Amino acid sequence: MEDTLGALRSLMASYSPPLSALVVPSEDYHQSEYVSDRDKRREFVSGFTGSAGLALITMKEALLWTDGRYFLQATKELSDQWKLMRIGEDPAVDVWLADNLPKEAAIGVDPWCVSVDTAQRWERAFAKKQQKLVQTSKNLVDEVWKNQPPLEINPVNIHPLEFAGCSAIDKLNDLRENLIKQKARGMIITTLDEVAWLYNIRGSDVSYCPVVHAFAIVTSNSAFFYVDGRKVSSEVKSYMEENGIEVREYSAVSSDVALLASNQLNPSYTVKGTQVEVKSDANNNPSESDGMGNGTEGIEENSFDLIWIDPSSCCYALYSKLDADKVLLLPSPLALAKAIKNPVELEGLKKAHIRDGAAVVQYLAWLDIQMQEIYGASGYFLEGVRVNQKKHSETMKLTEVTASDKLEGFRASKEYFRGLSFPTISSVGPNAAIIHYAPQAETCAEFDPDRIYLFDSGAQYLDGTTDITRTVHFGKPSEHEKSCYTAVLKGHIALGNARFPNGTNGQALDILARVPLWKDGLDYRHGTGHGIGSYLNVHEGPHLISFRPQARNVPLQASMTVTDEPGYYEDGNFGIRLENVLIIKEADTKFNFGDKGYLSFEHITWAPYQRKLIDLSLLVPEEIDWLNSYHSKCRDILAPYLNESEKAWLKNATEPVGV
Amino acid sequence: MEDTLGALRSLMASYSPPLSALVVPSEDYHQSEYVSDRDKRREFVSGFTGSAGLALITMKEALLWTDGRYFLQATKELSDQWKLMRIGEDPAVDVWLADNLPKEAAIGVDPWCVSVDTAQRWERAFAKKQQKLVQTSKNLVDEVWKNQPPLEINPVNIHPLEFAGCSAIDKLNDLRENLIKQKARGMIITTLDEVAWLYNIRGSDVSYCPVVHAFAIVTSNSAFFYVDGRKVSSEVKSYMEENGIEVREYSAVSSDVALLASNQLNPSYTVKGTQVEVKSDANNNPSESDGMGNGTEGIEENSFDLIWIDPSSCCYALYSKLDADKVLLLPSPLALAKAIKNPVELEGLKKAHIRDGAAVVQYLAWLDIQMQEIYGASGYFLEGVRVNQKKHSETMKLTEVTASDKLEGFRASKEYFRGLSFPTISSVGPNAAIIHYAPQAETCAEFDPDRIYLFDSGAQYLDGTTDITRTVHFGKPSEHEKSCYTAVLKGHIALGNARFPNGTNGQALDILARVPLWKDGLDYRHGTGHGIGSYLNVHEGPHLISFRPQARNVPLQASMTVTDEPGYYEDGNFGIRLENVLIIKEADTKFNFGDKGYLSFEHITWAPYQRKLIDLSLLVPEEIDWLNSYHSKCRDILAPYLNESEKAWLKNATEPVGV
Repeated sequence: MEDTLGALRSLMASYSPPLSALVVPSEDYHQSEYVSDRDKRREFVSGFTGSAGLALITMKEALLWTDGRYFLQATKELSDQWKLMRIGEDPAVDVWLADNLPKEAAIGVDPWCVSVDTAQRWERAFAKKQQKLVQTSKNLVDEVWKNQPPLEINPVNIHPLEFAGCSAIDKLNDLRENLIKQKARGMIITTLDEVAWLYNIRGSDVSYCPVVHAFAIVTSNSAFFYVDGRKVSSEVKSYMEENGIEVREYSAVSSDVALLASNQLNPSYTVKGTQVEVKSDANNNPSESDGMGNGTEGIEENSFDLIWIDPSSCCYALYSKLDADKVLLLPSPLALAKAIKNPVELEGLKKAHIRDGAAVVQYLAWLDIQMQEIYGASGYFLEGVRVNQKKHSETMKLTEVTASDKLEGFRASKEYFRGLSFPTISSVGPNAAIIHYAPQAETCAEFDPDRIYLFDSGAQYLDGTTDITRTVHFGKPSEHEKSCYTAVLKGHIALGNARFPNGTNGQALDILARVPLWKDGLDYRHGTGHGIGSYLNVHEGPHLISFRPQARNVPLQASMTVTDEPGYYEDGNFGIRLENVLIIKEADTKFNFGDKGYLSFEHITWAPYQRKLIDLSLLVPEEIDWLNSYHSKCRDILAPYLNESEKAWLKNATEPVGV
Repeated sequence: MEDTLGALRSLMASYSPPLSALVVPSEDYHQSEYVSDRDKRREFVSGFTGSAGLALITMKEALLWTDGRYFLQATKELSDQWKLMRIGEDPAVDVWLADNLPKEAAIGVDPWCVSVDTAQRWERAFAKKQQKLVQTSKNLVDEVWKNQPPLEINPVNIHPLEFAGCSAIDKLNDLRENLIKQKARGMIITTLDEVAWLYNIRGSDVSYCPVVHAFAIVTSNSAFFYVDGRKVSSEVKSYMEENGIEVREYSAVSSDVALLASNQLNPSYTVKGTQVEVKSDANNNPSESDGMGNGTEGIEENSFDLIWIDPSSCCYALYSKLDADKVLLLPSPLALAKAIKNPVELEGLKKAHIRDGAAVVQYLAWLDIQMQEIYGASGYFLEGVRVNQKKHSETMKLTEVTASDKLEGFRASKEYFRGLSFPTISSVGPNAAIIHYAPQAETCAEFDPDRIYLFDSGAQYLDGTTDITRTVHFGKPSEHEKSCYTAVLKGHIALGNARFPNGTNGQALDILARVPLWKDGLDYRHGTGHGIGSYLNVHEGPHLISFRPQARNVPLQASMTVTDEPGYYEDGNFGIRLENVLIIKEADTKFNFGDKGYLSFEHITWAPYQRKLIDLSLLVPEEIDWLNSYHSKCRDILAPYLNESEKAWLKNATEPVGV
């Protein structure tokens, strides 16, 4: 680490102009939430392994900004060369730079690793002291990273229509209609899941996310796919050609964006069947376009000037190649199109969640036996102190990691399984209070029949992505734990049962999951729900159920997916979270006041809530009815996937309550 | 009306520059919600009597913009010379002007009747076509209004400390601390209830609002009260002098603002005991101020440059006299200070609401007898069709207006009564679906035992302002009416019973009152709650419980008042609304997660909900418990104000349900 900082400072000093500071963000060239090992530059320089953070290296100091989820972890992982900057408590990086660096200081950043929004915000902040953001021509971290993992060369796979439900041609046509609406000549797509969704391809370049490192450019008469050619089989190449998509080298995107800016980016071969009907002759007269003579007969380019990029995800490097006057900075239309699932995707998601639920039930039934056999726990159903002494032996030991490996095994046995959708959170007792806890085999906790166990996990299946959280206790939970669990459950049910008019956003609904906790003066410091992909990223926008302002940006709409995951966390003691995936659908209301149309949720996650943790006296009849109905459906839906003993266990776990 | 438009157009044509259009807003010089008869200029020119609207007169056309509450009424009231412009459906006035008037057109407005925010928004819109907003030197409507009511000369009354709870001197000190915090030299206060609150005075210049037409200017060492001198008794004059407030003529505010801008506004006499401790010597060095030699020994003016005005309420005329570079455009700190009631005000509000609740119960008991005797209704308690033929005679007739007069009578008999706080909404059947219905004696509806009756009313008492809505039925309500009433009641209870952390705003809470209605696909097109004054305006900001963005601006805080008034309206059929006033207080929660502190509501309105309209099968035990507890408190709290038969009626009306 010491060498790294020294080497970086040498490069900074010899850079022209000499850099007073170097910013190393967590993101890759695509502003991904999860990045490949090769792209973990911030982790490499700082030693901090959390998913979110930003490193800053000056000639004298090294600082790491991260958020509240990671304060504890960062404190442990950072060496004493590094200073932890707490987001929300300490000054933001741009404020710190303005305060601590001299006038006219040069601050370097790899412009491929920072979004337009962020870079422009920094530039505004730096301007106050005539400081300058320097776009480095190379990534300085790569220069000093001796053992940087090589470029991954994983194959690009076609995502078949039977799972995608909509062809790339149809998606391109919709996108081209959007281009015309916004008077844009073309769009640069940099977000990995948007490229994968648009072209119906999947890959394995990033752990947990079935995406390919790639860019796309789409105009009215062309579509390009920028990817390492070694990843593209001849079959994929033909598929692309059939869909009017030209495959080019990943590195060519840079020069091609420059060509696009000067209206000289021409496809090498004919585009078939992707023409968008020209709706406005006045503004988009086909006869006006010219110089296209590369075999694009019949497919005319529109005559607009603007190039569309999404400023929150497009990197500054590509933006800088455009004429700033001719850039349309607007959220990508693909984010919303991707969020609204088509009927095939909805069907796939439902099926994937049934298989996934079966794996969860198998895991719980297996855990129940282990807890009784290894630890003498009273088990999932009985509420007693342990019946005999712990029969602990190293071979029999059950840890957060060995258990979650077993859960992965149950999932892996299911049809269409392709891997996990995020690192499993498997957490005993106090670890459950760490919201983004990621157990490590060497250091993780052992199971304890006297403590709560929370697991938040999901998988990638060809037909859908899953995400579920359950919280259980195999011994005697305290009255306090039960009361908290019940409050979380009440919030979870209240949100899931809500009906609301079209136009309602996820900020308005967020409170429904909190009110039962607020009654006791309890709360949780995270949002309540996120979209989920169709065999794509487990976190998917543009909608959100949260108190955060972003949750106001996009109203919830029919056929979106969203999680329902309230929680409660008591530091050093326990954590509770319950999470199902919901599909938004038209509600079957008696009336339709204001002709707005009303929406409701359909749960597609199937796994029981632990009766022992529910204080039934706190539930109202509607909640009890919902619980019994959900449990009864669990039983019916999951049965085909379970053996006899698992079925018996599930029957027991789903017996009606309060009747 | 024809003459009016013609006369106005003559004035517009001969104005220099000639005006292509004249805007006539609804507001007075103080941007009041309710205005005096003399200030009803928009009503005079257009004939439209609703409270909200904007008239626009061009050489050829006359247009009136108003919102959805008033479409029906405006259609009835506007002559065929006028065109109704529907806010939300038709283009906004500034858009219309840009579209319909030529380039460089001059558009006149009396700058006293338009806020800074609005005028600046218009100017930005007009700039696109080089159109110009002309501030007329006189109000052109006043010029042509032959029978304009004279200036009212109502006395200014001192609002005693036993009701105000905080002296004008203390309020001025707090304001002066705010001036220093914002580095402001002085503040211009134009809102009538802020002037009344700050100086602890009340009046009767505007119906329903106990305010005085007045302005105030406050600096670190002076305070001015601009008012028609004929309204100020020698007692009030002495009171003002004792509090360091100088009384000047209403019309002097204009020239005094100009003096303030040039730092030449000097008080004529010594200000005693109002000095604010100087907290920052560096920024506010007393020795820097000078030229004050008008007997201001010891009270030094601060040396800041800025003049603070609230852009949403200060008129453009006064703003135009300031140096734009030295204006601080920020919401008035008095709005929040006024909204957070002191202990004396809270005590007064509670007492006023008890007397007011007694009047409502007397009214209901009286109505119950009338409905049975005049119309043969089964009455408040029994759910039957009428038992005998209507004994209708002209003398016995009960109308929306005669009934509400009786209600006013019950209120007027109570201690400290000073008048109504707004025009009573007394509405039978379909009229109840008109949210802002104001019955007129000549045209209003007669009572009908087969229809719902909704009344929304309130009064001004020396110790507090009230606002309550109840909905009742004296015959046999339909199942649909009951189900809707119960949904409204559930929303009313859910909001009233909520607990929430400090920092929560009224937009977040709004949904709690709607969710029970949304379940059935029902909703209402108005906000859920507003602040209420202490013997001041019945609608008081800055907080709000509503889906509107403004409701996000100010978090709810302990000691604020707020109404809880969901509803449901079925056009042409019936309307339902239930409204109580709540006080926000610290919640007694078991825990205090995040150390934020939690808040809850206390109902201070006392009147029964009609059991007959409640479908008990839709209530959960918590709601039934709340209802029974509320009713039991009603009985105890109101008893001292009722005679024996009223007490018996109330006992019956508050019998526990569902036990």
